[in-house]
Amino acid sequence: MADGLPTSVAIREVGPRDGFQNEPETIAADDKVRLIEELARTGLRRLEVTSFVRADVIPQLADAEEVLTRIDLPEEVSLCVLIPNERGLERALALRERFNEVSVFLSATETHNLENVNRPVQESLSGAERVLGRARDEGLRCEAVIAVSFGCPYEGAVRPDRVLHRPPAARRGRPGAGLRRHHGDGQSAQVRSFFALAREHLGDDVQLTAHFHNTRGQGLANVLAALEAGCASFESSFGELGGCPVPPGATGNIATEDLVSMLHEMGMDTGIDLAAMLACARDVQEVLGRTLGSHTLVAGPVDWTGPGRRLA
Amino acid sequence: MADGLPTSVAIREVGPRDGFQNEPETIAADDKVRLIEELARTGLRRLEVTSFVRADVIPQLADAEEVLTRIDLPEEVSLCVLIPNERGLERALALRERFNEVSVFLSATETHNLENVNRPVQESLSGAERVLGRARDEGLRCEAVIAVSFGCPYEGAVRPDRVLHRPPAARRGRPGAGLRRHHGDGQSAQVRSFFALAREHLGDDVQLTAHFHNTRGQGLANVLAALEAGCASFESSFGELGGCPVPPGATGNIATEDLVSMLHEMGMDTGIDLAAMLACARDVQEVLGRTLGSHTLVAGPVDWTGPGRRLA
Repeated sequence: MADGLPTSVAIREVGPRDGFQNEPETIAADDKVRLIEELARTGLRRLEVTSFVRADVIPQLADAEEVLTRIDLPEEVSLCVLIPNERGLERALALRERFNEVSVFLSATETHNLENVNRPVQESLSGAERVLGRARDEGLRCEAVIAVSFGCPYEGAVRPDRVLHRPPAARRGRPGAGLRRHHGDGQSAQVRSFFALAREHLGDDVQLTAHFHNTRGQGLANVLAALEAGCASFESSFGELGGCPVPPGATGNIATEDLVSMLHEMGMDTGIDLAAMLACARDVQEVLGRTLGSHTLVAGPVDWTGPGRRLA
Repeated sequence: MADGLPTSVAIREVGPRDGFQNEPETIAADDKVRLIEELARTGLRRLEVTSFVRADVIPQLADAEEVLTRIDLPEEVSLCVLIPNERGLERALALRERFNEVSVFLSATETHNLENVNRPVQESLSGAERVLGRARDEGLRCEAVIAVSFGCPYEGAVRPDRVLHRPPAARRGRPGAGLRRHHGDGQSAQVRSFFALAREHLGDDVQLTAHFHNTRGQGLANVLAALEAGCASFESSFGELGGCPVPPGATGNIATEDLVSMLHEMGMDTGIDLAAMLACARDVQEVLGRTLGSHTLVAGPVDWTGPGRRLA
């Protein structure tokens, strides 16, 4: 591949968790189950399906147990659930055989952490350590999510050392088991230098995943910058769902179908069938009854069948 | 600047021509004049205001003479008009003192050229040579626009040699006066290699401008790739107007406010006041009475005032 870009890229679909929790209405469990099963048959290998949060805090995901129990997914799809605290882990472990991975989260900045979960970063960190310790004992793949890794809507841009020196909880205990996801809005030069620095600082044992919002339209530019810095794992949401709710009305995460279209056009492999992913996006658009922000959903996949289709 | 990116970038606003001609309704000349005058006071240095096309072909720009006559712009703004043929040049030259630049256009592929102007490329090329010769005699800055430089909705991906070996009309006659704009949809690796090759092939005498559609959300990623390949001149449309009308419903050109936001976040200078540009986008959104695709119009400018605001 030209420019040292990877030849294949891993994508985790997070729409059923990150997307559905951000919708003003609660989507019916029947629709969720159907959409998740449809997503799991697009060739995706990773899927975040729900979060075990308190129903009074995020009623949109109050059906976590029901959804997790009912979905019927292919063996090869690794299922992830988001765990906010030990109580959430208890609930999840009652369905231990239904999923493969957990993720815990904290913010890079104090203000965002307080706004998001109403406690200081240090407290989130201690909680995360306890959750991860127990999850590992259960043989679960564990991942730490660092929100606002590039910039915080409350505190401004975030210096990489503030992010990288957060004790990388997910790294401990198990060589090779370190997984970190970096979320947020940023600009491309900053994203590139962040991922280059993170790889240098954390070493090859830690698998880095990038998760970009498309708040100001720079999501795919940031993917390009992260690819150039050696990151080959991304998260996205079908239909461009989810993302940062600040400012109000902002667009969501990068759309999975836009990400897949770009990577395939560039000659990279994702394992995902773009037509099948577009069908999922159309389905969720119908369920939600509003026009979603995804571009490829409108434009359709590139059909450049000429001899020079892939020039990279 | 990190990564060898330019410290300042030139932007030509093309919304009044490329955007307005793609709207289903004709915008009133009063609105056009107000919007163009507003745009010209944002710090922009280049503005494409209209095209001297036949009124029966593009009725949306039938008021070219009226608009060009009425607008009152600051001295430092260079005004460009698009010229499709010699008849169009005649009309434009009757208002010779009202503008500074002309651009002529042709497509990189036969099919697109036939669909667009109903004649073969060779015929467009001869016509362009005649227009450019005469325009140069009038002391006008001249630029050649090559549509579908990266990929054609009819013929597929376009090999760079097909584009670069088109006799670069704008290059002849006057050393240093060569200007070329490359339009279209593409993917980032291809865009990067195209601009690297173009610079090598055409030399420093030819100023290259990139013009990207945001059809599949990759517009700003393509800007990043072009910047990395040494291109420091771009075109865009306020509100994300214009762009490729194939497929129907597709989003437009990259939005000027999204481009400016990204470049400023990356620490580059454009000379443009982003708040003033956003006011223009809000104004045109109101005139058109529909929600436009621009992201920064919804999200607002980044307000990351922390000490680490610019980390690039």
